[in-house]
Formats: sequence, C-alpha cells, structure tokens
Amino acid sequence: MIKTAIIGASGYTGLELLRILALHDKAIVTAVTSRQYAGKQVTEIFPSLIGHYDEMTFIEPSEIRDVDAELFLCCLPHGTSMEAVPILLKAGKKVIDLSADYRIKDVATYEKWYQAHSSKDLIAEAAYGLPEVFGRETIKNADLIANPGCYPTGATLALAPLVKAELIKNSSIIIDAKSGVSGAGRTANIATSFMEIAEGFNAYKVGEHRHTPEINQSLGLLAGAEVSVTFTPHLLPIKRGILSTVYADLKDTGSHTTASLLEVFRQNYADEPFINICEEGVLPNINEVAGTNNCSIGLKLDSATGRVVVISVIDNLVKGASGAAIQNMNIIYGLCETTGLISVPL
Amino acid sequence: MIKTAIIGASGYTGLELLRILALHDKAIVTAVTSRQYAGKQVTEIFPSLIGHYDEMTFIEPSEIRDVDAELFLCCLPHGTSMEAVPILLKAGKKVIDLSADYRIKDVATYEKWYQAHSSKDLIAEAAYGLPEVFGRETIKNADLIANPGCYPTGATLALAPLVKAELIKNSSIIIDAKSGVSGAGRTANIATSFMEIAEGFNAYKVGEHRHTPEINQSLGLLAGAEVSVTFTPHLLPIKRGILSTVYADLKDTGSHTTASLLEVFRQNYADEPFINICEEGVLPNINEVAGTNNCSIGLKLDSATGRVVVISVIDNLVKGASGAAIQNMNIIYGLCETTGLISVPL
Amino acid sequence: MIKTAIIGASGYTGLELLRILALHDKAIVTAVTSRQYAGKQVTEIFPSLIGHYDEMTFIEPSEIRDVDAELFLCCLPHGTSMEAVPILLKAGKKVIDLSADYRIKDVATYEKWYQAHSSKDLIAEAAYGLPEVFGRETIKNADLIANPGCYPTGATLALAPLVKAELIKNSSIIIDAKSGVSGAGRTANIATSFMEIAEGFNAYKVGEHRHTPEINQSLGLLAGAEVSVTFTPHLLPIKRGILSTVYADLKDTGSHTTASLLEVFRQNYADEPFINICEEGVLPNINEVAGTNNCSIGLKLDSATGRVVVISVIDNLVKGASGAAIQNMNIIYGLCETTGLISVPL
Amino acid sequence: MIKTAIIGASGYTGLELLRILALHDKAIVTAVTSRQYAGKQVTEIFPSLIGHYDEMTFIEPSEIRDVDAELFLCCLPHGTSMEAVPILLKAGKKVIDLSADYRIKDVATYEKWYQAHSSKDLIAEAAYGLPEVFGRETIKNADLIANPGCYPTGATLALAPLVKAELIKNSSIIIDAKSGVSGAGRTANIATSFMEIAEGFNAYKVGEHRHTPEINQSLGLLAGAEVSVTFTPHLLPIKRGILSTVYADLKDTGSHTTASLLEVFRQNYADEPFINICEEGVLPNINEVAGTNNCSIGLKLDSATGRVVVISVIDNLVKGASGAAIQNMNIIYGLCETTGLISVPL
Repeated sequence: MIKTAIIGASGYTGLELLRILALHDKAIVTAVTSRQYAGKQVTEIFPSLIGHYDEMTFIEPSEIRDVDAELFLCCLPHGTSMEAVPILLKAGKKVIDLSADYRIKDVATYEKWYQAHSSKDLIAEAAYGLPEVFGRETIKNADLIANPGCYPTGATLALAPLVKAELIKNSSIIIDAKSGVSGAGRTANIATSFMEIAEGFNAYKVGEHRHTPEINQSLGLLAGAEVSVTFTPHLLPIKRGILSTVYADLKDTGSHTTASLLEVFRQNYADEPFINICEEGVLPNINEVAGTNNCSIGLKLDSATGRVVVISVIDNLVKGASGAAIQNMNIIYGLCETTGLISVPL
Repeated sequence: MIKTAIIGASGYTGLELLRILALHDKAIVTAVTSRQYAGKQVTEIFPSLIGHYDEMTFIEPSEIRDVDAELFLCCLPHGTSMEAVPILLKAGKKVIDLSADYRIKDVATYEKWYQAHSSKDLIAEAAYGLPEVFGRETIKNADLIANPGCYPTGATLALAPLVKAELIKNSSIIIDAKSGVSGAGRTANIATSFMEIAEGFNAYKVGEHRHTPEINQSLGLLAGAEVSVTFTPHLLPIKRGILSTVYADLKDTGSHTTASLLEVFRQNYADEPFINICEEGVLPNINEVAGTNNCSIGLKLDSATGRVVVISVIDNLVKGASGAAIQNMNIIYGLCETTGLISVPL
Repeated sequence: MIKTAIIGASGYTGLELLRILALHDKAIVTAVTSRQYAGKQVTEIFPSLIGHYDEMTFIEPSEIRDVDAELFLCCLPHGTSMEAVPILLKAGKKVIDLSADYRIKDVATYEKWYQAHSSKDLIAEAAYGLPEVFGRETIKNADLIANPGCYPTGATLALAPLVKAELIKNSSIIIDAKSGVSGAGRTANIATSFMEIAEGFNAYKVGEHRHTPEINQSLGLLAGAEVSVTFTPHLLPIKRGILSTVYADLKDTGSHTTASLLEVFRQNYADEPFINICEEGVLPNINEVAGTNNCSIGLKLDSATGRVVVISVIDNLVKGASGAAIQNMNIIYGLCETTGLISVPL
Repeated sequence: MIKTAIIGASGYTGLELLRILALHDKAIVTAVTSRQYAGKQVTEIFPSLIGHYDEMTFIEPSEIRDVDAELFLCCLPHGTSMEAVPILLKAGKKVIDLSADYRIKDVATYEKWYQAHSSKDLIAEAAYGLPEVFGRETIKNADLIANPGCYPTGATLALAPLVKAELIKNSSIIIDAKSGVSGAGRTANIATSFMEIAEGFNAYKVGEHRHTPEINQSLGLLAGAEVSVTFTPHLLPIKRGILSTVYADLKDTGSHTTASLLEVFRQNYADEPFINICEEGVLPNINEVAGTNNCSIGLKLDSATGRVVVISVIDNLVKGASGAAIQNMNIIYGLCETTGLISVPL
C-alpha cells in the first residue's frame, strides 16, 4: 500500500482526494492537514465520508514532518505551496502539487501572472502531469508533479490533436469555457452563495484569468512556437464540470469534414482510457463525466466559416484536479493507470 | 384600452404576454386561443395568473374570427403562423408575429433553413421589430411586425455598435450563446426534464441553428455586405435568460481601449430605455435582467490578441420575445415605449 | 408621497423593500443605511436595481437623524433593532420593525428565546402586523409595527381559521415547514453556498427554532388558551418561498369533509386581497407566489386518521417580510392595501 | 459470476441497476429489455454508461425467454410486473421485483389501492426485501423478492426501532416525506420539466399515496396490530433522495431524552452496514447519501410537546430501489452484503 498524506485538505480538491482514495486498492491516506480544522474529525467536517475515515482527525500543517507517508498530495493555494514543497522533497518524499506553483516553466511569466517565486530551481524538475498530451515518461521518473489546472486540462485536451497535426491557425484560437461552482473553491463568499448562483450565469476575468499562460505554454510546446489564445471563463450554476467550447480557423478549409476531424481525434487518443470521442452528430454533456476522471470530446466543422468548433467536458474536481493527481500517482508507482478511477456517473 | 388577443397561448411566450399585459395600463387581453386547452380556464393551466384572469377560458383557434380585438399577438410555431397571419391582416387587424415566419426577408434563405413559405408576399411588408437597432419608423407604420428571435436579439444588440462603426472584421465574428431552458418551449420532453437539465450543460445544433440566418441578415444590413457568423447555442440549467459572449477581431488593434469601446456602445444606445452599458471592469449577470425587458452589455478588449469580447444578457422570454412584442405594440400605438415594461428583477 | 428610510438595507429584506418601493405610487425611499456598505452606490451592490436607484448611496447608521423621512423600515437584526427603534419613536417617526424585537408580548418568553430586552415598555405599544388574522384597527393607529416572522406568517395563516372555529385539538398541532435559502439571510457562509445547498435538503433547529414562541402566541390569542406546537423547519434548495404543511386532529372527525373545511377557510378569508383558497383537489406550489405578497392555501382531510392537513405557501421575503411591511404601511397611511403589491409571478 | 437480466430497463431504476452492476465483482448483466428502445444501443440512450456497456443493445421483452440469466431484476410498472413474474418463476429463475405487485400481502388492500391482481398465489411466497427490519432469513430462501417502495423504506427505517420497542402511540404517527424528482420516473411530462420543478416545491396525493398501505403493513407487522399513519409526500427540486420527517407521541413522555432515544436506534441497527445513526445535535442532509445505499437517521425529542421527531435520509434510487435490489441479490447468493454497494457520495 502506498502511504499518502494530503496537505491543505479542507477544500474541495482535498475532499475529492479523500473520496477517491477511500476506494483505491493500492493506496491509503495516513494523514490530512488543515490549519482551519486541526483537531477536528474529518467526518464532522465532511459527513459524506462517514464510514470511510471515521477515526481520522485533521492535523496542524506543522505536524507534517512526523507523518508516515511517502507521497504528499499538496492542495495548498499557490504561493503557500512553494513554501511547503521544497521541504518535502528535501526529506525524500514524492509530491504531487495541485497548485499552480510549478506549472509555468518560464519564471517571468509565472511572476507576471501570479507572484514572486521562492523556489525557482525546482520548476525545471517538475513534470507537468497531463499524460494524454505529454506522455508518461517524465511523470514516471519525477519526484515532483505539477498537476495541471482545470481549465487548461479541458482546453488542451480539446486542442492538442489539432495543434499537433498543424490543422489550425494557432492565432485564431478562442476558448469559451464554462465551469461549475466548485472551481471557485470552498470558502464563505456571498458571490458563490446559492442566492447568487442559482438562476444566474456570468463571465469573469475575461482576458485576464491566470490559467491563460498555462494554456499558452502547453499549446506553444505542441506547436513549437508561441501561441496566444483568447480565453473567457464563465460560472455555471452547477456543482461540477467544465465545458470548453473551442473555436479555431482551419488552415485548409476545403480538405476536412466533421468526420475526418473526429478521426484525427480518435487516432490521437486511441489508447487513452479516460478519453471518449463522440460519434458524429453527438456532443458531450457535462453531466456525463460528473464524478469521473473522463474527458468526452465532440466537434463540428462550421463549413460556412471554415471554423472547427470542438467541445470537451471534464469534471473540474476529478480530471481537472484530484482524479488527475491519482492518475499521476498510479503512473509514478507503475500501477494500472485506471486504478481507483473507474466510476459511473450518477 | 387596446384590445388584444393571443393566438397559441399555451406556451411560455403566451404565458409571458398574459403576465405582462395583466399589469399594462393601456391594453387588455380579450381572448386567448389554444387547441390543446380549449374550454379550460386559464388559471387552471397557469395558476400563477390567479387573481388576474380568473374569468378567462381558452378558446379554439377557429373561434378567433369572432374575437373583439384589434391587435393579435401570434405565438404559433413557424409554419402555422404563416397560415393564420394573412387571414388576420385581411380582416383589418394588426399582428405581432412571434414566430420566425416573417423575419427572413430572402425567401430562399427562409425556405432553406425552415420550410416552404405560403405567404411570401407579406414578408416585405413585415417590420422587423428590433427598434434599438433599426429604429421606430417602420414599426410605427406597420400592420405586421416580425418579432425578433431570442438569440438574434441578444447577439445583434451586442454587435450592432461595432458593425455600424466598422470597427471589427465581420468575417471574424463568433457568437457563443447560452440560453435558459424556457427557450426550448413548453412541451413534455425528457430532454428538458429536471433530471436531464439540473447539473447538466451542453452545446447543441452547432453551426446549424435556425437563428443563424436571422443574425447574418441583421448584421449584413448594418454592414452593407454579407456577413456569416459562427453561432453556437448552449443550454443552461436555469429557467430564463440568454448570455451571449461575442468575439470579433478589431480592424485596427492599436487605436482602442476597453473604455473607448464602451463609449461607442454608450453613445450608440444613449437614448434607449431598456439598454444598460456596464461600467469598465463590470460584466453583466443573466440574473440582473430576469423578468425584465432590459439588455445589459459589458465588454473587454483582449489586448494580447486584438480581439474584443462583448457580453450581453437578456431575458429570452421578455426582451427576447414577449416583452419586445409589447414594446413594439407600445410603439405602434404611440404609447410611452416603457408602458407595462418597467419592472425590477427578483 | 410618503417619505421612507430603510435602516440596515444590506440584506435581502432591505433589497426587497427597495424592489417593491421602486414601483410604489405613493411612497419613495429617501435614505438607506448600511454599516457595511456606507459610501457605496446602491446599484453597485445590487445591480438588479440599476435604473431605479442610480443616484442613491448607502449612508452610515449614525446619519439617520438627518434623514428626511417620516416612516422608518427597520431591517436590523434582533437586539440591534431594540436600540434604534426607541430613538426613532422619540423623534416622532413611525417605525415598521422587521426584526423579532417587538413581536413577543411576554417579556420573559422573549428573553428566554432571544436575549435581554432593553426597551420593554415599547412592546405593549407595538401592533403585530398580520392584518388577515388580527385585523387592521391596531395597525392603523400604531406608531410601531412589529412585522411578523416569515414562518409564523405561513403557519398562522394556515391555522387561524381552524383554531378560531375551534375545530381542532390544539395540542395536536404539528407544523412541518420548508423555506428557501433567502430565509437564512445575506451573509457569507459555507452552509448557504451553492455547493452545500444545491441537490441538498435538511431539517434544522428541530423543536428549538425562535419562531416557535411567536406561533404559539398568535394561536394562543386566537384560542384563548395556551398553545404549544411542534415546529420543524427545513432548508429547501430554492431561493424564495415557505411551504408549511400543518397537521391537526379534528375534534369531531365525523362531521367534516375536505370541501366543508375549505369552505371554513373561504369564508374566513373572504375579503382578503392577498389570500387564495385552492379548489378541492388542488394544492398550492411555492412557485405560484414567488415575488408576490400572496398566500395560497389548500387542504385535505385524511379520513383514515381524522387529521386535517393544511398547506400554505408564501414568499418568505414578501408576505413573510418586506411585502407585509409595505402592506402595513399602506394600512397606516390609509392607502388601498394592495398599492405597490400587485404582481404576477414569473 | 451471477448472470442477471434487467426487464424494463428504460427508466431510472433500470439505469441505476446498470450503474451499480457495472462495478459489481460477482455479477454481470447479460440482457436488458425495453419495449421503447429495443434495438438501440444502451450507451446511445444512457451516455453516462459509455465505457461499461458499449456492446449491449436493448432487446424486446418477448426475447426474454432466450436470455442466459439466472436472476431477473424486474423494473416493470405494477400491473405489468404481475404478468411477467409468474412466467420467469415457472422457468426456474429467481426474480427481484421492483414494482409494488408483490409487496402487499393482503390482496384486498392491494386491489383497493392499485388494481386487480392476476397472480395472487405468488404473493405469499414473495419475501419483502427490507433486511434491516425483517431480517435475512426469508430473503435468503426466496425465489421472489418484493423490493420495498422508496417512501416505505425511508419511513419504516425511521420508525421500526420505536414501534418494536413500543415507545410511541402508533395512532399518532405522521410521516412528512420529501422526494427528489427521480421518484416520479423517467417519462416526458411537463410536470417534471425543469421549468416546473426548479424553484418550485409542492405536496401531492396527500392522504392517498399508494405507498401508505405498504407503510401501514410493515409497521402493523412490527406492532402486532393495525397501524394507520398520515403520510404526506412532497416533490423536491433535487434529483435524488428522500428525507422523511416522522412525528410520533411518546407513550411515556417523562422517561426519555434525545440521547436515550438515539441509543435505542443505535442498538437496534448496531450490525447494519448501511445505516448510520447521527450524533446528538446532528441531523442528516439528503446529500450525504446521494448515490449510496446508506440510510442516515437523526432525531430530536420535542420536550415541550412530548413528541419525538425522527429524520431519515436515503437515495430513493439506491436504498429506495436498485441498491436495495442488489443488497437482496447479495443476500440470496450468500455474498458479502455490501458487495458492489460501497461508494462515497460526491
């Protein structure tokens, strides 16, 4: 059994890791930290875990050094994560970091969009944990995984086959993304209250969301050139899920059909256990992946304009965060990649 | 008092007309037709109208000829509307048609996207009822109003100032629209059941929604040239409202700011009672216009890509249908345009 | 025009008063106080009010003495209200207090369920503002109105005809009430976040909710004897509305039918503009009164057990708070009682 | 592997059986029938099952005789089920019937509340599948299981310990139950559309719901005397779950506390893997059991009235239907009772 500890477990990604690991055959959770809830029972804060963690209590972050675990799943906010991770690595632990701190390879870009970075030297060592796009090799051998952001996961999975095959004009890429409320985190806030969210819908941080440089980085790596997308996030009145509607102009509008483009996706993701390519004429619904590590992708060629419209859906808390972390854990430890991650949505 | 009759009043646009006219000072409803509910009390089918239409009963469509009314609000589906409207006009009545039958000026385009047209000669006479974009003159003098579609209303209001001022490349226009469930109509259907809609979200009819040619027509008129947009509708898990996120490449990227573009909108809609332009840094939420005839518009210049992102919100049943119809009625009868249409959202 | 001021206007009852008064013919709002938002524009905090209060700014509570108003609508929390009200009355103002501070006539009972009372002498002067049950006389002549609680309004309207007619065993009364989230107030709280509320439902404060003594007081007054009910509130995943399911054993089970009991209600509330008694076989839905000052009541005799089951629905923010306050204002000023309170639910 | 077939699999209980059995270690589904969808792929109708039943197609009910299965899970509506079950039993199959047809032991009672019964002789043979209340013995040895109704499961689990211990006056029992929309079945119906359900709430079939005699039967068996409850179902705007608020007068009001009553429940259900008794002061939320086979129970003594208020929550599709069916299957086949039924709610 792999012994894991979850740092900063009071939020939704921590809860989601606990949910997934509760039924994982090869890994257990030995400790969870939370400044806010230290000393409280896990099941008192999260009654949905009753029957699975009845004996577990949140501990102080400072107690982490005494924890019997080899893998640390770090759910701290960016900025805080870069303080904790170096200590864990120095102690010989493996770390999967769910924050943004080690995702952006270019320090100046990170510091422009986020803040000053206090452990720059570790950025190069971190493996970006999106195996469907960048493969398993670097993940397998890394001590530090930078777990991808939720929006970048949905957008990159929807665009990678097209960018890799050089089918689209990269300067034309627009990502119109819609996320469930869990993406906003678990904090007391009138803006995410039921009263504000139910029967509401809005865009936010247009052109200035911090996931933009992460998307640009991944697409740029695939393109071998700088890419700059327009990215517009919206807040959906649902709990979970991101639907990304992606627009791009085809380079050669005459030589494609919806079917031929779907075939590009199907071949690209042929061996991927978590990716489903929809039949022609079918578009994915966000509720088909809720609670799962799956990504479902459909598309349509808009022949009147020569644009391709790709639509991907993921659960932002699973494939967009905690599920991807466990998938990366499975890769690191040589387990079957789907261990603990097979589920059927309600 | 203007005597009005509502034809095909069993759906949401009919119910919405009844709701608005219940509190209108200068108009009353004298009859409502419904094949499905003929003989039933209006308040039995729509308990929300108790206290306002307690004595009114749905009548058969065939009884319409005996109705004492001068203005007919036609809520029939397209195809059926074109059968009813010519008879009413011949009888000297005024008609506001909420279907698509008289919106598209080019018959071939109508017949390509919808069906064969049986009263083509009336198309030219019909005034397209979007006064904020095309003015009041033709509406004022028309016997037949083609009331705009819900998606076209939201998209055209978001784009008209930019197209008129020739600020954007019209070939680059992308409209990513999200509508509440009432847009799907009031019919028994598993696809619009609570079980399917709640916690769900999906795109549909990508590149093939029937509102596309209506949007192209309006923008083409403003541009003085053919326009072909990419239009992607989505289905939101809310009851009312359309949020349209509109993307376009600026012709001259260097000479604009978010503030200067907002000023273009502000001047363009300066005298419009139902249009609100947001302050810089503010984006509209769909819940701010629910139940009202208002349209709220915000925008952002994405300086990294030279694209402008405009966001408009309307209530699809009010400004997108029945409220616009009453606004057009007010114009026809020389009333203050806001009569019966001032409300504060819940 | 009646000049009104709203004290403590940052919550849902304050917003609701602003919404209703925006369209009231005979009253205007001259000032709104809010410690939290003092200095901010009303429409910045509440965008739904754009177009109605564009020039209004929240002021500090301390500035209230300089406000030009004759009627003060007090939305402060209990405990705080009893500090502000005596000052206003001394200054010759009229006050409608939406808190619990002047509802409970028995000081010991108030102090047991709430806290120490600092202006006990005013309790006797306060008129309890539920005109459908206790008439208009005391309201008309009062300078201080204790506006009823939301749960007590729904429960008392459902029970008053039965208690007054002495048809039920008062010791058998059970009130199972379900409220929308707005009842919990407008505060940042994980417990009322969309994530916790959507797809959830729970009972709370069983047997210990503070509205219990208020219900007991009203029913006791009608019965001429002490009444002690079982009251169980629940939290519904909707924004507005309270549905109260009330159970009581009939004294004489043999002499009633559902129809005869409905007739008791119909006669009791014959002249009430805001109360609707459902037809036999029809039960009210909470969505039929959303946004209105109406109360709709249905009932069923459970002949197998000799129990009557009465179901009432109100909008907790309107008839359960701010609408009732305006109704009381209309009574005080001799206006038609429905002024500003006629609306049709969406 | 146990080979199972699902009859009438086009509804929510059929879908739920497919969901649960997809991950069951010891059982597989070999066939699914559906008149409506015969010939269609399972994953076309239920995209949430993609990856699990990709090769499976719905077959005609008439093809059931050729199916290779030993256990038939029958999801037909009542009336239809009694036609199919005798044929299967005669063919030597085991049947778990999710309809009401074999739940009511007294034929006259069944025929009064439902319809004429065409296979009365089998009623006595059927084992009522609520093991937590009536034990495992009869289930283990039965060829036909009458799987309990959803409301009866929630209500009976909440009342059994009190009735068995003779602590309450059985004539005083009131069950105020609230169910998610899935309880209404998967049919196209305006009444269960998102537009009607969202932001709505109502009671229905007060005093006349068909689950009433089933509840009376179970409590009567435990009491050794006739019991007649008042049962009021309500429709919640959520997908899944039933919360039952149960009221009963204690026989001896002086000798109990909330803690002592909780202890009665705790001892009664001490060995039950799916039942959780809440701590004193804690009440269960419906979202804690969504997607699970669990029942969580909390209670409060209302000392002012001598009534106990018990609150139970279940997922109506799992413990209230398909999960209970799999639990019964596990018992029949001597498997660990929790096989395939351990899950953590989202």
